[in-house]
Amino acid sequence: MSRAMNFNAGPAALPLEALERAKAELLELGSSGASVLELSHRGKEYTAVHEETIARLRKLAQLGDDWAVMLLQGGASQQFAQVPMNLLGAGKSADYVVTGVWGEKALDEAQRTAKLLGGTVRVAATTADGKAYRRVPRQDELSLDAGATYVHTTSNETIHGVQYASPPAVGAVPHVCDMSSDFLWKPTDFSPYAMVYAGAQKNIGPSGIVIIFAKKEFLARSRTDLPKILQYKVQLENDSLYNTPPTFSVYLARNVLAWIESQGGLPGIEKANREKAKLVYDALDGGKGFYTLPVERESRSTMNVVFRMPTEALEERFLAEAKKHGMIGLKGHRSVGGMRASLYNAVPVAWAKALAELISEFARANG
Amino acid sequence: MSRAMNFNAGPAALPLEALERAKAELLELGSSGASVLELSHRGKEYTAVHEETIARLRKLAQLGDDWAVMLLQGGASQQFAQVPMNLLGAGKSADYVVTGVWGEKALDEAQRTAKLLGGTVRVAATTADGKAYRRVPRQDELSLDAGATYVHTTSNETIHGVQYASPPAVGAVPHVCDMSSDFLWKPTDFSPYAMVYAGAQKNIGPSGIVIIFAKKEFLARSRTDLPKILQYKVQLENDSLYNTPPTFSVYLARNVLAWIESQGGLPGIEKANREKAKLVYDALDGGKGFYTLPVERESRSTMNVVFRMPTEALEERFLAEAKKHGMIGLKGHRSVGGMRASLYNAVPVAWAKALAELISEFARANG
Repeated sequence: MSRAMNFNAGPAALPLEALERAKAELLELGSSGASVLELSHRGKEYTAVHEETIARLRKLAQLGDDWAVMLLQGGASQQFAQVPMNLLGAGKSADYVVTGVWGEKALDEAQRTAKLLGGTVRVAATTADGKAYRRVPRQDELSLDAGATYVHTTSNETIHGVQYASPPAVGAVPHVCDMSSDFLWKPTDFSPYAMVYAGAQKNIGPSGIVIIFAKKEFLARSRTDLPKILQYKVQLENDSLYNTPPTFSVYLARNVLAWIESQGGLPGIEKANREKAKLVYDALDGGKGFYTLPVERESRSTMNVVFRMPTEALEERFLAEAKKHGMIGLKGHRSVGGMRASLYNAVPVAWAKALAELISEFARANG
Repeated sequence: MSRAMNFNAGPAALPLEALERAKAELLELGSSGASVLELSHRGKEYTAVHEETIARLRKLAQLGDDWAVMLLQGGASQQFAQVPMNLLGAGKSADYVVTGVWGEKALDEAQRTAKLLGGTVRVAATTADGKAYRRVPRQDELSLDAGATYVHTTSNETIHGVQYASPPAVGAVPHVCDMSSDFLWKPTDFSPYAMVYAGAQKNIGPSGIVIIFAKKEFLARSRTDLPKILQYKVQLENDSLYNTPPTFSVYLARNVLAWIESQGGLPGIEKANREKAKLVYDALDGGKGFYTLPVERESRSTMNVVFRMPTEALEERFLAEAKKHGMIGLKGHRSVGGMRASLYNAVPVAWAKALAELISEFARANG
């Protein structure tokens, strides 16, 4: 087996230890006589996995009893719809702050939902610059409605590589945040938020589950006239077991969370993440203008490093060169082109170092 | 590793070959340098898996170009809501035939949806007998609305063990069928249906995906004012890649579908399934009244064999005895009690034979 240096944006690199554990246990979980893939979601073996996953999330995020943790299906994309379906309605309004493609999508689903089920959706700020996004908004650019039911932000924009250094102040309005691509990348104070959600397939596990943290008092305001499967209240009452969960995705997230613990927890993860981002950005900045970084320095993402070269032909050559060095997943999102290196939790510092060296070398050779 | 004889109702036994292939490939898919769990859903390796899965389904089900095949998240439970959300609306009506708990749930979600988004929901028939379901309806019991937008049935009721021997005639009204627990258990003529859906975690794979077959002309009638993630049209246009799919669940379903092919395809699978069901039902019938079978003979499920004993204490003893023989998953659903043996595609004939022997032996010893 040859393991590539994997810079995919998601699904993305997973810790080798988490995969090796899955491989070792694939035919039988514990002494259950069956694979985790074959076990009932109501049986004691899966129940233990489910509960451990939630307990590990609670511990890493230091959530008190006033917080609910849910593991649902449909990814962050379904949350774009489920948040307004549960929380909007006639006479209610929600603010959206748009800092990239994912914020646009969340806004679009909210607008569709408001049309269908009542309510108003406002754009509290957007940093769109033509088709690009180069920064998060300044605090004074936020036109917030103090009476809003919630305000929605995207903590890290995966496609454009734009990240908040710290959460924007939104006053007393409940803050709902899509944290898919920078979830638990460092010790995080969740107290400014009413709800966060994150597709697992970046920092926490494989695709197939979305992790939700929500203050119970916030969920208490959600609608009860939706189909049951879409109601947060129903999922909460059933501990995310209202229907059959994606058991293997939860199991693998458990393995990743155990690995995070073994790395010194989130402080250890943050140290590595900052080192990786510094290595790659320093190499790009040191390229004497060969590389263009579309994102303003203060909004640079520690997770998704986006960069361009003088010509597309050079970018193609860089990708081919990277492949020769055993690096994959460096092509930018098809909607924006260019290059993107995703440096999620599971990417080792050594891979970032190798990439930084290639970046420096390539600029010297072609600059 | 000791492999139990697994009679779970879902998630359920998977073919050992499909699991062993997953184990062998877990750290690297092909020569990709990464696990399938780590690969982009837009990359060539996962694309090949995605396309192979759909192609194998099309081939096994012999679907022409007039049929769409989709792989979505949320299981059959989400389809209970998504079907009426997409297809009902003001001035439209849907008929529901209820033959068990899952039909009740589908009906309830449709009624909630109709209240929210318009439309009418009728019960075209129910075979509820108190809290039990013992049979499918006779054709003359169906009170069908010839003007309905669709009529919904459940081909096999997992909890009560009630199965249609052949699909009911519904005239020209589009027939939507929840086939979760008997999907592709034999060669199936899909031409009487407009749409079928099935959670994979019974006959086809692990939990996390629901497989949908739908006539394209039927989907063309679905709503476009829903949030995009919930629109069949959007999923169809994007080949089930509108958002990140549960890539590992699809991958494993691919392995199971390849295994089905290796077993002589659906004719081979049907032969084994009929043999398994005969072994177990014959043993139960041969118990000289020790066992009670709540389901009428003509409606007996080939997939979920439900039976009771004279006392709950004997049932507990049977479960303990079964466990000693290496059998798991025989407890009935918590809502109905008793015993249930699920004999899905991946359960080998040898397991059914061992169970049949235990059933006969236990009646002799305790009858």
